[in-house]
Amino acid sequence: MEKKVTLKELAKQLNVSISTVSKALNDSPEISPQTRKKVKELADLNYYVPNVLAQNLKTSHTKTIGVIIPAILPHFFAEALHGIETKASELGYRIIICISNESIQKEAESIKTLINGQVDGLIMSLSKETQAKMDIDHIKTLFNHKVPLVLFDRVLDQISCDKIQINDSLQAELATMELYNSGCKKIAFFSGISNTSVSNERKQGYLAALKNLDIKEKVISFDPEKFPEKKLVGLISRKEIDSVLASDELGAILVMKSALDAGYKIPKDLSVIGFTNGTMSKHFRPSLSTVDQHAQDQGKLALETMVDRIEGKLSEKFSNYTLETSIIHRDSTRRNF
Amino acid sequence: MEKKVTLKELAKQLNVSISTVSKALNDSPEISPQTRKKVKELADLNYYVPNVLAQNLKTSHTKTIGVIIPAILPHFFAEALHGIETKASELGYRIIICISNESIQKEAESIKTLINGQVDGLIMSLSKETQAKMDIDHIKTLFNHKVPLVLFDRVLDQISCDKIQINDSLQAELATMELYNSGCKKIAFFSGISNTSVSNERKQGYLAALKNLDIKEKVISFDPEKFPEKKLVGLISRKEIDSVLASDELGAILVMKSALDAGYKIPKDLSVIGFTNGTMSKHFRPSLSTVDQHAQDQGKLALETMVDRIEGKLSEKFSNYTLETSIIHRDSTRRNF
Repeated sequence: MEKKVTLKELAKQLNVSISTVSKALNDSPEISPQTRKKVKELADLNYYVPNVLAQNLKTSHTKTIGVIIPAILPHFFAEALHGIETKASELGYRIIICISNESIQKEAESIKTLINGQVDGLIMSLSKETQAKMDIDHIKTLFNHKVPLVLFDRVLDQISCDKIQINDSLQAELATMELYNSGCKKIAFFSGISNTSVSNERKQGYLAALKNLDIKEKVISFDPEKFPEKKLVGLISRKEIDSVLASDELGAILVMKSALDAGYKIPKDLSVIGFTNGTMSKHFRPSLSTVDQHAQDQGKLALETMVDRIEGKLSEKFSNYTLETSIIHRDSTRRNF
Repeated sequence: MEKKVTLKELAKQLNVSISTVSKALNDSPEISPQTRKKVKELADLNYYVPNVLAQNLKTSHTKTIGVIIPAILPHFFAEALHGIETKASELGYRIIICISNESIQKEAESIKTLINGQVDGLIMSLSKETQAKMDIDHIKTLFNHKVPLVLFDRVLDQISCDKIQINDSLQAELATMELYNSGCKKIAFFSGISNTSVSNERKQGYLAALKNLDIKEKVISFDPEKFPEKKLVGLISRKEIDSVLASDELGAILVMKSALDAGYKIPKDLSVIGFTNGTMSKHFRPSLSTVDQHAQDQGKLALETMVDRIEGKLSEKFSNYTLETSIIHRDSTRRNF
């Protein structure tokens, strides 16, 4: 990038003070129209760009909100970003986004990049590493600089800030109950996203439901790149399971695909409920019954909360929003609820 | 945001020069270890953050690259971002992302937000509106400020810069030929993304192939929210089509789903080839044969080109990369190629 012309250089060329140049560019009535015109013409000629950061330090508001998400490939985060972006446009804010790639170090770097005078506040969903290690030193930097923070979806209790979540545990419990009420008595829990707080919450909900129902637990974690197809098919053929609650959309699709490929019928031989209502859930055959995570709504609410916080509309006490969710009944479960 | 402690204030408190403080914070061997320690401790105590922009003006490099994409929901852009992010990490660069929401105005705002001293260069895929109106005044601002630009996927001939594309037209022609060679003689083109340059290119390729094959054209554009299911089923039942080239992944999935729901078999009654190799293509039953757009590779190459441009490794003449693509043969097409 070429060196930029500064106010000082413009002032020197015109033989006026820096403050005159600055006022002229901001159309101050203190400056004569002729001088304003002269300054602006020279500024244009030199491709002068006001230094946003310097301006920000003055006004203290950039109308820009930073967003850090842990990954971009899961559809949930694309949907959440879409919600954040839509609401920001509506409220006259801009967003700039960084991706932490599930790493604490990148999360910390992203925070530094974004807070250096650039953003009014930060919306984050934490990386797996941050959640697993519960290392939040880099988050504390934010508070030291009085930059407000809103966490959504992947949060940590130790961090005091506004939070947006769904009640993952309760929803998993209800989904497990629904499978039971539809006639399933051998319910397994499959997770392709273990190590995340949401997967743990969902597992807890599943286990809580089983306790009440006196059903034996069966928890299977897997790497989505190496889905344990044979294991699943074995469980079905030995009639050890008749249904699956999957902690994520891709996991649920892989369960259905493997069962169908092995010749089993869904929901006759295996009922399946997933989490996250993405495009695949809707278009797969059979379509997937799923707990709607309301990704876009979480994004919208996170942005709204941030703007209210920035604009001083919230009390000092932090909010902890839990969004109401619902189960979308489609063709992967039996109808007799 | 609270006022930040400056180098000057730190210097005053320690009764040393500003340059000493600055050098101490940067671990300069010119400064004694004791003084370095003293300076750093006071800086930590006061939550000192270096002013990145001020540093940038000095070094002229932020090691940060801006990315503007038109939308976040299509899987292609999530994949491309993932490629950009991966390569940036590898090369020691940070990225910050804005979404233009397919609007020229938001694209222009995003450019302003990103170029004000913040980024070394900009990677963009243009909004539908920019492509349709061919209005590029806001892009010219970039060139006035000597900020390098790399365009990928959605580009415009009028803009002189480095460009990364796949040969959409050629690939569509080859895909149409493949359908023909597998025995299909009535090939339709379905697009759920008309108005984009890529959809037009693909249509041109389809039409070019038909010309050589002496087959009658059948082009159907639709809104993916309202897929013309009856129309498709009518065409199949009247034997007016035996195969579909779809300009996008979701379009191809909707074609398959509608045909299967109506009781037709794929590929026996209808062969289908799509574009973009996303998660749905892989996991749908039957899996979708598709032109791989190499989204991640496009992203990686865009980032690499940008870094080479920033670091002065490229000649003044702009590059126009056309990525080699390939057709991934899966279960939605016949095997007799």
